[in-house]
Amino acid sequence: MNISFLAIGNELIQGKISEQNARFLAQKLEEIGLGLKYLLVAGDREDDLTDAFQFLQESSDVIICSGGLGPTPDDLTAQVFSKFTQKPLELHPEILEDIKKRFQLRGIKMPLTNQKQAMIPRGAKIIPNYQGTAPGFELEHNQKIWCFFPGVPREFQAMTQQYLIPRLKALAGITKALAGKTRRVYGLAESQIADILAKISFPPEIYLAYLPDFPEIHLRLSVQADSPELAKELLNQASEKIKSALKEYLFSDDDQPLEKVVGDLLRQKGKTLAVAESCTGGLLAKRITDIPGSSDYFLGGFITYSNQLKISQLGVSEQVLKEKGAVSSEVATMMAKGAREKTGADLAVGITGIAGPGGESGEKPVGTVHIALADEQGIWERRFQFLPLSRETVRILASETALEIIRRRILGLRMPGEKNEPEKEK
Amino acid sequence: MNISFLAIGNELIQGKISEQNARFLAQKLEEIGLGLKYLLVAGDREDDLTDAFQFLQESSDVIICSGGLGPTPDDLTAQVFSKFTQKPLELHPEILEDIKKRFQLRGIKMPLTNQKQAMIPRGAKIIPNYQGTAPGFELEHNQKIWCFFPGVPREFQAMTQQYLIPRLKALAGITKALAGKTRRVYGLAESQIADILAKISFPPEIYLAYLPDFPEIHLRLSVQADSPELAKELLNQASEKIKSALKEYLFSDDDQPLEKVVGDLLRQKGKTLAVAESCTGGLLAKRITDIPGSSDYFLGGFITYSNQLKISQLGVSEQVLKEKGAVSSEVATMMAKGAREKTGADLAVGITGIAGPGGESGEKPVGTVHIALADEQGIWERRFQFLPLSRETVRILASETALEIIRRRILGLRMPGEKNEPEKEK
Repeated sequence: MNISFLAIGNELIQGKISEQNARFLAQKLEEIGLGLKYLLVAGDREDDLTDAFQFLQESSDVIICSGGLGPTPDDLTAQVFSKFTQKPLELHPEILEDIKKRFQLRGIKMPLTNQKQAMIPRGAKIIPNYQGTAPGFELEHNQKIWCFFPGVPREFQAMTQQYLIPRLKALAGITKALAGKTRRVYGLAESQIADILAKISFPPEIYLAYLPDFPEIHLRLSVQADSPELAKELLNQASEKIKSALKEYLFSDDDQPLEKVVGDLLRQKGKTLAVAESCTGGLLAKRITDIPGSSDYFLGGFITYSNQLKISQLGVSEQVLKEKGAVSSEVATMMAKGAREKTGADLAVGITGIAGPGGESGEKPVGTVHIALADEQGIWERRFQFLPLSRETVRILASETALEIIRRRILGLRMPGEKNEPEKEK
Repeated sequence: MNISFLAIGNELIQGKISEQNARFLAQKLEEIGLGLKYLLVAGDREDDLTDAFQFLQESSDVIICSGGLGPTPDDLTAQVFSKFTQKPLELHPEILEDIKKRFQLRGIKMPLTNQKQAMIPRGAKIIPNYQGTAPGFELEHNQKIWCFFPGVPREFQAMTQQYLIPRLKALAGITKALAGKTRRVYGLAESQIADILAKISFPPEIYLAYLPDFPEIHLRLSVQADSPELAKELLNQASEKIKSALKEYLFSDDDQPLEKVVGDLLRQKGKTLAVAESCTGGLLAKRITDIPGSSDYFLGGFITYSNQLKISQLGVSEQVLKEKGAVSSEVATMMAKGAREKTGADLAVGITGIAGPGGESGEKPVGTVHIALADEQGIWERRFQFLPLSRETVRILASETALEIIRRRILGLRMPGEKNEPEKEK
């Protein structure tokens, strides 16, 4: 059963407001195992609406429309659809009474223009609207089902839940169950993941979607099955396959941000964390403290943007700064060490780099970032060369990499750049 | 000239993510006096795409498509369009080289699947993508212009500005001069601004749009006139009227973020800045250092998330912490003072508050934030009660208010909460 959605309104097509009903509808449909074929947005213009009706009549079995049912002259939906189907508009006195009553309740006499909202194409079934003046209606036309609703999100959403979803379930004879989960991956490109997962066979009930969310790739796994038990089983089987294929690159099974995963690990191990940031300028600490409850494990840190603060607050050596430069292994190491000593944290991270634009030198181009980690095992340090797409992307990549380094260190996994990273070298 | 937009992607039609490109495109088109006829969203399915191409080919003169150009098997746009137009896909070695280089820079060998992104329908013109691996392309088919772009908003938006808008201007033969500027306002609600501006009359050539961008309101002023000179003159007149009506609430005339405005003021006055953050956890420093060149005036700061660090790094008194609590005027003041003394900065800001969820007490609900500023004039401090909509909104409001406090202090304007804020009391 092909279902499409037509949102009607000049304000939608002009980008004044975002279309909110389509996303709500798509999510409600997914809950009952259905999906949209097309979402079409058109303005309140007769010719555009006629062509849109024609396209959807040909391509879909059920067409859900919202908007253009208001009382003002620019609202044309019912009139144009009446012409399109050659089913004349008829006045429904019971709707008119209802609209009049609504105005009475507000102590206002119904303006004449509102009479228009009681005009419905012949043969249509009225869909009640308990939230506003304009009712919806459903009509069969040349074997296709057309449903019309007001565009106001509150009204559309209530009518979708009360009328449309039960109606579609009945039309589709739905008995299937659904289950979906999003996994998050960092350190592999979308195409690398696709290459790895191409070797796995999934049953046809499983559908895998790639949702790149820079700098991560999110994988959404959904399934349609005849019972919730079967859905769960199929999903678990697919999950296990993905897990063992992507190994430690999969950092969250249940759609959690990396800073949450790292925070949970720290809490679990009873470890505390501090940071010393130069080029990221607070972004790493900001991400860590985005998570409620992060005070359980995060002590705080230093934003040593100037060399002066690197020296006075973290004990970075003035001579090393002069000889090696602020962006160097030595300075990153001293920053991590200094932050750990000053705060008494179990783990401390130091970041120094060139976020750009500007600031690069021959051997240190924009995107060069040194990240060091100090803990009871000692110091780990590495130079990274990020793609200098923009200042923002360099800073995001640096903070993401720092979080990933903490995660790998706590879990005892291979650290970035260490041998035996076969997926990365592929 | 009828322009339509086709957004392609399963995740869009399934309601997992909202379509962001259409609204951006519609606004950019409006700035040059053009508009969209249709917005169509379809999933990555061959038949659906073919029918969508057919519908748009018949109904529009220019069709702009986004999405489905990725390397994975579910990305079908170029293949389906190639079939639709019967223009075979051809490998472009120069694109392949470019993609390979991008992977090389990251130290990875290009996965074979990415080769697909170098396959473009015969006769198409390549549209460069400086932000990602997939280039776009433009093709004329039966007198209609088709443009394809990646769906990633960052890439789509950059390519729209760099390529599409100039191209459409040329196609439409736009000769009218346009001038548009976005002004940014903080501290007044949209309805307050509307009330104030309702008293001003603008000539009909001027179009004023309200673009709320939490927590700011941006005002976009555009004008269409017969010559660039006239456009500029009309715009300047309108600008002056808006400026004198909104007074110091208008903090940027030319669409600059508040952190940039504050940074420019600091540089101009030769002043340096340091921060001490508790509840914002690095967000304020992150915003300040979002601006390239911020090292000219920003020394750095302290993220004293734990009380322990407030004491050891900023010299906050243990007794005051016990008696008044970490969220208090006294602690905010000591944080600002401590940061100023430790760093030698001219100005230092201290922020301590309850971002939530949790952490509130009877007289200190979620959203309570104390902000202090220390400079050569002494200390300024105030308690703010932000609407506790979410942890994120409290933190954004706290960082925005801190920046606004710095701006007002440097400019010698009334500080928040001081008398003579007539517009706010209205």
